[in-house]
Amino acid sequence: MKVERSVEKAGFYHYYPVVPVVVAVKAGDQLDALTCAWYTALSFDPPLFGVAIAPKRHSYQLLKKSGEFTANFLTFDNVGIIATVGRTSGKEVDKFSAYRIKTLPSTVIETPVLKDAYAAYECRIVKQYKTGDHVFIVGEVLAVHYRGNAFDKKDKMPDLKSVTPALYLGADNYIAIKSFGQIRMGKEDILKKAVPRNNKKQKAE
Amino acid sequence: MKVERSVEKAGFYHYYPVVPVVVAVKAGDQLDALTCAWYTALSFDPPLFGVAIAPKRHSYQLLKKSGEFTANFLTFDNVGIIATVGRTSGKEVDKFSAYRIKTLPSTVIETPVLKDAYAAYECRIVKQYKTGDHVFIVGEVLAVHYRGNAFDKKDKMPDLKSVTPALYLGADNYIAIKSFGQIRMGKEDILKKAVPRNNKKQKAE
Repeated sequence: MKVERSVEKAGFYHYYPVVPVVVAVKAGDQLDALTCAWYTALSFDPPLFGVAIAPKRHSYQLLKKSGEFTANFLTFDNVGIIATVGRTSGKEVDKFSAYRIKTLPSTVIETPVLKDAYAAYECRIVKQYKTGDHVFIVGEVLAVHYRGNAFDKKDKMPDLKSVTPALYLGADNYIAIKSFGQIRMGKEDILKKAVPRNNKKQKAE
Repeated sequence: MKVERSVEKAGFYHYYPVVPVVVAVKAGDQLDALTCAWYTALSFDPPLFGVAIAPKRHSYQLLKKSGEFTANFLTFDNVGIIATVGRTSGKEVDKFSAYRIKTLPSTVIETPVLKDAYAAYECRIVKQYKTGDHVFIVGEVLAVHYRGNAFDKKDKMPDLKSVTPALYLGADNYIAIKSFGQIRMGKEDILKKAVPRNNKKQKAE
């Protein structure tokens, strides 16, 4: 293992790949979007979803005005949208009209969801925290849009046979992935298989 | 698209798969770890990394005492560690000794990194925010440990030919992935290829 004190030198991509999120925001008659790899769910009850955004971004000004956003997840077929939205500025271009990004109306908020999304959240901003050179915006998830066939009926997780999410690998690279191994390991499996016995050397696997 | 108001009904896995993080923490002579799918980088300068943790978790008590943690990323070969650490409690078992999880010393903080990690961050806690039913813990990254051959030399992103990260898909399922398509689409490519012309219908791709 190498050790490096500076993320500038080591990079800050070690936890990638990640499904990027296209954050859309509508303030008055302005509709804009940006792409983030830095986001996370934060709470089940209430359902909270947080996104880190550089405050210099044009979309951030709109987020402050609107107090809401949609979080959209797209397939690898739509990498063009993800990358374009991520690398252009709403200061210079009306991204939705220039790149012909289609939308569908939301059910609770004014900001639409992306028509090409296989899942999207309608979020109302409940908190904002300054975190270093970004602002971390926390939204309450008020509605979930999703393609029924993109998710496992029982377990509700992505069904990778039916949907190919775009994943971001870092440095402007996006990948399509295939699973070549899958393990389900719940508490009962761990108690059954992985509880250590003292009479022999054993790995947790 | 289906629309659902409740994440309990819709699930909250739409943005998965995600590389889970094993958060280790040492307070006094107690060493514990837990697995999280809910985390994100937050800032480059200073480098900040946030993890959402349910406050009922034993590790959370240790985090409050220690003020530090390590964030460890493991390969699919080590799903046993990830799942076991995620599904057992430090209240009941000393996970490191019971499951023979090996560690390496950190360089700045007291909490060690996992020997089996292909990358790990040493973090000092700088903020904590209550976010619904979780606490969002923000750490400053003081050192980065990484396997040189797991990352692209130039772009510093994971080299999926050399490392197979474990990805969490939801509902206790972990997958190994292979990339079957990769696109690099930086600003220059977008300006070259994706700037819309008005004389014909064109998609952003």
